[in-house]
Amino acid sequence: MRLSALALLLVSALPALRADEGMWTFDNVPVKQIQAKYGFAPDAAWLHRLQLATVRFPGGTGAFVSADGLVITNHHVGRGVIAQLSSAKADYVKDGFAAADRDHELKAPGLELMELVSSEDVTARVEAAVKAGMTDAQALVARRNALGELRKAEEARTGLVCEPVTLYQGGEYWLYRYRKFDDVRLVAAPELQVAAFGGDPDNYTWPRHNLDFSLFRVYVDGKPYHPEAFLPFSPKGVAIGDLTFISGHPGITYRQLTHAQMVFARDTGIPFQLHLLARQRAALEAYAATSPEAARLAAGPIYGIGNGTKRLTGQLLGLAKPANLEKQAAAEAALKAAVAKDPALRARAGESWDRIARAVDRQQALLKEASLVTPGRVALLNHALTLVRLADESAKPSALRLSEFSDGNLKATQARLLSPRPVEKPVDAVLLAADLQAAQDELGADHPFVKAMLGGQSPEAVAKAAVAGTTLDDPAVRKQLAEGGKAAIEGSADPMLRLAKALDPFNRAIRKRMEDEVTGVFNEQGGRIAEARFKVFGKSLYPDATFTLRLGYGPVATYANGSGTLAQPFTTFMGMFDRYLGWGGNALAAEGGAWTLPQRWLDREAKLDLATPFNFIYACDTVGGNSGSPVVNVKGEFVGINFDSVYEGQGGYYVYDADTKRAVATDARAILEALRKVMDAGRLADELTGK
Amino acid sequence: MRLSALALLLVSALPALRADEGMWTFDNVPVKQIQAKYGFAPDAAWLHRLQLATVRFPGGTGAFVSADGLVITNHHVGRGVIAQLSSAKADYVKDGFAAADRDHELKAPGLELMELVSSEDVTARVEAAVKAGMTDAQALVARRNALGELRKAEEARTGLVCEPVTLYQGGEYWLYRYRKFDDVRLVAAPELQVAAFGGDPDNYTWPRHNLDFSLFRVYVDGKPYHPEAFLPFSPKGVAIGDLTFISGHPGITYRQLTHAQMVFARDTGIPFQLHLLARQRAALEAYAATSPEAARLAAGPIYGIGNGTKRLTGQLLGLAKPANLEKQAAAEAALKAAVAKDPALRARAGESWDRIARAVDRQQALLKEASLVTPGRVALLNHALTLVRLADESAKPSALRLSEFSDGNLKATQARLLSPRPVEKPVDAVLLAADLQAAQDELGADHPFVKAMLGGQSPEAVAKAAVAGTTLDDPAVRKQLAEGGKAAIEGSADPMLRLAKALDPFNRAIRKRMEDEVTGVFNEQGGRIAEARFKVFGKSLYPDATFTLRLGYGPVATYANGSGTLAQPFTTFMGMFDRYLGWGGNALAAEGGAWTLPQRWLDREAKLDLATPFNFIYACDTVGGNSGSPVVNVKGEFVGINFDSVYEGQGGYYVYDADTKRAVATDARAILEALRKVMDAGRLADELTGK
Repeated sequence: MRLSALALLLVSALPALRADEGMWTFDNVPVKQIQAKYGFAPDAAWLHRLQLATVRFPGGTGAFVSADGLVITNHHVGRGVIAQLSSAKADYVKDGFAAADRDHELKAPGLELMELVSSEDVTARVEAAVKAGMTDAQALVARRNALGELRKAEEARTGLVCEPVTLYQGGEYWLYRYRKFDDVRLVAAPELQVAAFGGDPDNYTWPRHNLDFSLFRVYVDGKPYHPEAFLPFSPKGVAIGDLTFISGHPGITYRQLTHAQMVFARDTGIPFQLHLLARQRAALEAYAATSPEAARLAAGPIYGIGNGTKRLTGQLLGLAKPANLEKQAAAEAALKAAVAKDPALRARAGESWDRIARAVDRQQALLKEASLVTPGRVALLNHALTLVRLADESAKPSALRLSEFSDGNLKATQARLLSPRPVEKPVDAVLLAADLQAAQDELGADHPFVKAMLGGQSPEAVAKAAVAGTTLDDPAVRKQLAEGGKAAIEGSADPMLRLAKALDPFNRAIRKRMEDEVTGVFNEQGGRIAEARFKVFGKSLYPDATFTLRLGYGPVATYANGSGTLAQPFTTFMGMFDRYLGWGGNALAAEGGAWTLPQRWLDREAKLDLATPFNFIYACDTVGGNSGSPVVNVKGEFVGINFDSVYEGQGGYYVYDADTKRAVATDARAILEALRKVMDAGRLADELTGK
Repeated sequence: MRLSALALLLVSALPALRADEGMWTFDNVPVKQIQAKYGFAPDAAWLHRLQLATVRFPGGTGAFVSADGLVITNHHVGRGVIAQLSSAKADYVKDGFAAADRDHELKAPGLELMELVSSEDVTARVEAAVKAGMTDAQALVARRNALGELRKAEEARTGLVCEPVTLYQGGEYWLYRYRKFDDVRLVAAPELQVAAFGGDPDNYTWPRHNLDFSLFRVYVDGKPYHPEAFLPFSPKGVAIGDLTFISGHPGITYRQLTHAQMVFARDTGIPFQLHLLARQRAALEAYAATSPEAARLAAGPIYGIGNGTKRLTGQLLGLAKPANLEKQAAAEAALKAAVAKDPALRARAGESWDRIARAVDRQQALLKEASLVTPGRVALLNHALTLVRLADESAKPSALRLSEFSDGNLKATQARLLSPRPVEKPVDAVLLAADLQAAQDELGADHPFVKAMLGGQSPEAVAKAAVAGTTLDDPAVRKQLAEGGKAAIEGSADPMLRLAKALDPFNRAIRKRMEDEVTGVFNEQGGRIAEARFKVFGKSLYPDATFTLRLGYGPVATYANGSGTLAQPFTTFMGMFDRYLGWGGNALAAEGGAWTLPQRWLDREAKLDLATPFNFIYACDTVGGNSGSPVVNVKGEFVGINFDSVYEGQGGYYVYDADTKRAVATDARAILEALRKVMDAGRLADELTGK
């Protein structure tokens, strides 16, 4: 043993190595709890400054990080914009970008950032709209109308963008007021291959080596904006045990599901999804083995399936850990007991758990049809089904349409239909054959849907013929059919449209049954449980994630990974070069070159301080949507940018587990080192550090 | 996507990324198979040279690597010797060692190396001793006697050490002739902290960063020995896809178990072992939390349990992968079918599988008692039980004694009893209480064993009293009691002895039942199945591992790790520094300093070529005992030294799985770089490369 008493004393002296639960709204940060555990209490000014410095990107988060309006986010959040700004001559995604000076910063077309300026609890005003004697449905409409009117009035009054926010599944209603910035310019981004070193195959893993940042600048009236608040880069960085805070927009969590729903996800729902993914993967891999061109076409979908498999397996790991569902069951039992004691709550929610459990039984019974009687991942069949439905659905009142055709979603659905994104026919043929085969195997050859789709032929033959004969891969053809209305669809002999017509009634039927027997019950009874939970526990709990602004906190911390080793809390540039060199000169040959490095990084390796901290893990409670969130220290200084969370902690979508919940950030020090030594952008490093 | 057609072509061009099965005896290397797959056929001279260059260490393997008798093995194989050679003034384990010149090489007391010079198939002569009409038991004795006589005659004739070897569970009998070297001197070893960087917590993982080697020199007649064959260090090293061979002594495998036995291991045996380990671990962790001193004492046992847990969990992963047991079941079905067709085989082995299956049922029934009615890991109770039994057992004929008291084992048992190795009483108290608690919980409070041990008290009280009151932690007391015979034991009031006396009859009874109902059947019927397998398939199969010399082959190769990422095939020194730096200056505070580096390595970092390949993974079939095995390229040059295999492939003890079986080696290039740049032993690097 190499253990000394001193070493062990130090181990026990390392601060809190367990994560801290909660995605807290800024009006309800558990300051006392933080103070008790870490001896630091963020005050109102501290919190407000962090709130103002945080901005919302489409699908992610970012932050003001200089007095002159620099905004940082992940490379993968900015990537779409960086690609848009690229051209045949200048591929900024591949080669990176650093504006020579402010005159050369590139305006991002259509990019809008939102800064949460203030928020207001309007619960009382919303609830005032609900009158005695209203049914639940009437109350819902009354609340929705009240929120809509409040929003309109506030927008007129303030000139800000106002958004209604429902928290605690209806326990609270808020209006969030945003300042919108629409002149946002690209300032700098590293090469994709360093931003996403390891690529898709390395998602969710740790240790990581990703320089996952991009820099933008907000302009107002053509001049760099001076934000009310920004987060200067910490000159010192963080160390293990240091308390950090994360401010961002976690997207969605399922932590309020009932025990029956969690058990279903663990034992049936997720395993069946994994089973179908494995079937698709096997089919794609068999196809990929047929030629290099097939391998090229199949690589994208295979990585996509691999990614999904990893995420779901990670979730399953969390659900399968007995302590997690035991904790959840105990919390549910405590709430049930409180409900049982209160006659009003009991009348409203006393039976909700049992009702949900019965709906879960129905979900179990309908699972296979709900999963298989769909167009799945087959792009052409999705297009065809949209075309078949478009005319009929558009003619109905919005509330009666299938959800993707409702007023709120129709535009996006049409955009998807007419998107110029190329369809790879051979891949679609493989996926369609695999899905039809799965339907035949899982539902049985005599199932009416299977018979209607196959018409006595084999899955492969049907898929092959439909893909070979269709012209729906041409966006112009889709446009023509969409504009031609019902007549054009009826008149077309396109075999993929015929298949979509066969699918349509079966898919409508199973969707309706799922809504009536399963999701409708989950929504109604889950809402009652949430109502009861809020009445019993109030704001001692945090609300489920809603892609609105939240605060998390926790220390930089290690964890025991899947094989039991304590993970290093930081990586360095050395680790990145190790993983590149680890392919012994063959990095290009593995996983589509995921482990290659840009030539510039190889050339400038000697200039870099290789010991610079690169990525780190920290015990804040995050989920997807937190991408690009600033991570700050107790001084409110920027110490890193969040970009992922570890595999072993993916169960956090369902149950929070302090042992495994670790978020992953790119260290601020690595960003500065890269700007100075590789990206020829020392002036930006100076701006970020206030020099 | 970052995929190019070129990259994908290269992926498909990478040679065989799956492992090659088999631990082949040198007389039966599947040369045609290797030729067909890799275009290289090792000839008899090539193989004989590798055989002669390989040596057996106690519990491991090594190899001649210079014309002047340098021998390389793992640091962890040589560690005991290095510790013996250390003193209060000079701690060569901690600080490393490099002899200034040959005069300062340190003679290792008692270390003997064995070189397999030749071997001879003596099956016919052994079987000739079996006469018609002999019972199985008589035949067994006749064969044993024949082997003994052959051994004696051969040793007299050749002057070599001859060892009888049984292969294919009796399908073949061999005499192996060894040259013994007993003047072996320590030449160089790195610091433990680099040899075993990451320590116990990082066992079985990948990527690794271990400089796990030590160098010895063989002397004969006081002069450096010039071996018949040695393996010069490759000047170029290996690359991904390169074919490698490993020559060494795999210890034990269970690949010939029946399907019923494998299913038992998967569903019952291993999970129950893990359950008991988890109980012990929880008890030790609770104790460790009480004080820094408790944490220090508990750390060793906790790591030991962690290590065992990791190994068993890895084995379970392999057994739980459906394809693995399906493959095993198919092989069993093929053998059963062949047996059913042949009347002689059917008569002998036709019912063996069913008999084993029934014995597995008995094993299931006896599992808890067999696991819990033992002295477990409690050192003091083990000592006490040995003392209680010593006199009685010694008085019996060897064949009738409990196995640890038989002539072959008695000396080792006595040495353990009288070992000066300190006993940590507080740890023993925790473990004893945990084991008694487990017995009470699992067997029930009314079980006669539980009642006898507890006598109505709580497990904790019994453990506390027995540990507090015993003086068996003093080796002198144990010696006195051992020498005092039965009378001394009977006369002692030591409470641990009393506990051992209570345990003794119950432990004897369950051991006897296990032998009669379970292991006896496994041995007899398993032997018949092995006999049939050899008759049907002969030497197209390799025999189970027996800690005798074997050859494995396979390419340097990546694999998809637990979370789906393709593992880097090599690491470099950069990775080691990354993992050190990854603790941000706090490496000493984590896992007993497992991630610290010796000062000399920190001081000389700048001198090192950090891109030097450090460790690599390769797809040879190995298990424990292969530690220190040389890994060579097709030229027979030394390219690395085997030291571990990955977590995901631990199922290989039961079933070979090409997807996950990866061995781990220290790269020859790292050894040379370390000798030259850090260890001040450039002359050794020159000797190894023939300069």
